[in-house]
Amino acid sequence: MKLLITGGAGFLGARLARTLLARGHLNGREITHMVLTDIAPPPPDLLSDTRVSARTGPLLVHTDALREEPFDGVFHLASAVSGECEADFDLGLRSNVDSTRALLDALRANVNAGGQAARVVFSSSVAVFGPDPAVPLPAIVADDTLPAPQTSYGMHKLVCEHLVADYTRKGYIDGRAARLMTVTVRPGRPNGAASSFFSGIIREPLAGAVSMCPVSDDVSHPVSSPTRTVDGLITVYEASREAFVGRTALNLPALNVRVADMLDALGQVAGIKVRERVRFARDERIAGIVANWPGGASALRASKLGLKPHANFAEIIRQYIDDCAAAPNADQTLKGMS
Amino acid sequence: MKLLITGGAGFLGARLARTLLARGHLNGREITHMVLTDIAPPPPDLLSDTRVSARTGPLLVHTDALREEPFDGVFHLASAVSGECEADFDLGLRSNVDSTRALLDALRANVNAGGQAARVVFSSSVAVFGPDPAVPLPAIVADDTLPAPQTSYGMHKLVCEHLVADYTRKGYIDGRAARLMTVTVRPGRPNGAASSFFSGIIREPLAGAVSMCPVSDDVSHPVSSPTRTVDGLITVYEASREAFVGRTALNLPALNVRVADMLDALGQVAGIKVRERVRFARDERIAGIVANWPGGASALRASKLGLKPHANFAEIIRQYIDDCAAAPNADQTLKGMS
Repeated sequence: MKLLITGGAGFLGARLARTLLARGHLNGREITHMVLTDIAPPPPDLLSDTRVSARTGPLLVHTDALREEPFDGVFHLASAVSGECEADFDLGLRSNVDSTRALLDALRANVNAGGQAARVVFSSSVAVFGPDPAVPLPAIVADDTLPAPQTSYGMHKLVCEHLVADYTRKGYIDGRAARLMTVTVRPGRPNGAASSFFSGIIREPLAGAVSMCPVSDDVSHPVSSPTRTVDGLITVYEASREAFVGRTALNLPALNVRVADMLDALGQVAGIKVRERVRFARDERIAGIVANWPGGASALRASKLGLKPHANFAEIIRQYIDDCAAAPNADQTLKGMS
Repeated sequence: MKLLITGGAGFLGARLARTLLARGHLNGREITHMVLTDIAPPPPDLLSDTRVSARTGPLLVHTDALREEPFDGVFHLASAVSGECEADFDLGLRSNVDSTRALLDALRANVNAGGQAARVVFSSSVAVFGPDPAVPLPAIVADDTLPAPQTSYGMHKLVCEHLVADYTRKGYIDGRAARLMTVTVRPGRPNGAASSFFSGIIREPLAGAVSMCPVSDDVSHPVSSPTRTVDGLITVYEASREAFVGRTALNLPALNVRVADMLDALGQVAGIKVRERVRFARDERIAGIVANWPGGASALRASKLGLKPHANFAEIIRQYIDDCAAAPNADQTLKGMS
């Protein structure tokens, strides 16, 4: 089978690609070709796999060519992040809405030419939810909570959920939208996402650096580890349509955790000196965005697919430490623990 | 003040234009200019008003010019209807989603050039609601029922609701989305809407013609008269942001009525011979679309703005008869009553 992963050079996309290549199969079929599109090239380990080919550049540049190229399956992860979309309204619409529609139209062109509808997993986001004066936000957002996005990014994700549902209804794709929780701990540098600090306050102290937390420690948030998130995407792909149930998006499992709990877990796993590298300096822009995010999420439909959240945040930190220890630059990413 | 009405030559748009021109003011300001865009020219009575100018052709053709033209207020009614959108997927997206975005971007360009944000009323639809296996549809859909569109038209309307909300959040417009119920009794010929028969089964018998009802008489549906619908749009325009509450769409008031009740009312108002001109011939395509529509709607937020549904369907039929009697071709539209 031939797979496409958009955003395939990003942190989650590359991790998903590695996981799938290591498995070798998806939904009972052998993975023989995997195309990774992204604005940057994928990491060398992926490029060196003979099954992998890369297309580098904005997704919109590639969608014309994709009209001629049948795929059995697609993981559509490419997206501009929330901070970028707030700063550049047009870029956000182009990167998130126009690109998704062009991708779906390319897949539709293949069906119109007589091909099979590709199975498509779209990575939506918990950012579709927010408080609106007409629709109070519940403490815990469920699969069927009414979305009221409070960022352009959240609006884009919600719009794409409904595009995916309608293209699916028409038989142009076999689409499923899964709402990702905030993925933490992300390695590398902070990105433009307003949620970036949910990784930074763990990653930077472990690397020996001071990390500034832009919100107060009683902020609660639904998070998930990279591994559980990738597992969730694969499980949603492999679910039958009947098991997925309907065409509306589902929430992936979340561990609902306060910043204070995250830092307690950091102290518990890595020691008090590491914990003390986190300082608080309120950033009004970020705090304002985060104040409109839900404090927690439930995931009943995902649990019926066998997906569960981590039991506690210490597990998530240990997973990050294990990942770093296995990577070539472990001495840098964990030097704060020495 | 200068107003724009898209779809301004259509049945509702022209009626809204007439109502506003007769009032002469909106939200306390004198209406000095009114631009009507539509694929067809507006009726002669509107064109003869010195305050009115028309732009004929697809909305997308006009949006570039609109970037240079400030408006104080906009009623955005232009839309391809549900039947058209099911038949031509691309036409639907272009007419309903791309045109709306181009209009919103034109208004944004005016704000970016230093102008005031236009007040915008977007006509959404009860068609955003539908049954999804993961989200059972309540018997009566409320303002905060989770939309799960089961037609492309419903998806387009929902997508535009969220575009309007996000452009409003950013200050590019002062937008409000109001979900129209099925408007009946529409004059003239049947259109491509799957809901067309909700007018046909009243209009055709009154004109002396047999009308075929494509669904069974126990189908229930939320309807509204043209007058109440136009009143709803104007009230939503004039509401303060605080009174509108939030940025999510609201339902306009509905009379929830069964086809059997509609026909009973027809017999009561116009006599049994008129009533007997309605025959039943199931149309699977239309019945299938209608089966996915809600059987009724509530409108709590609209009621707080003072908007109420009609008390019964006979009132709606009498309004149609009064309208016809006042029009030049009354002998044709009501010849079935003679």
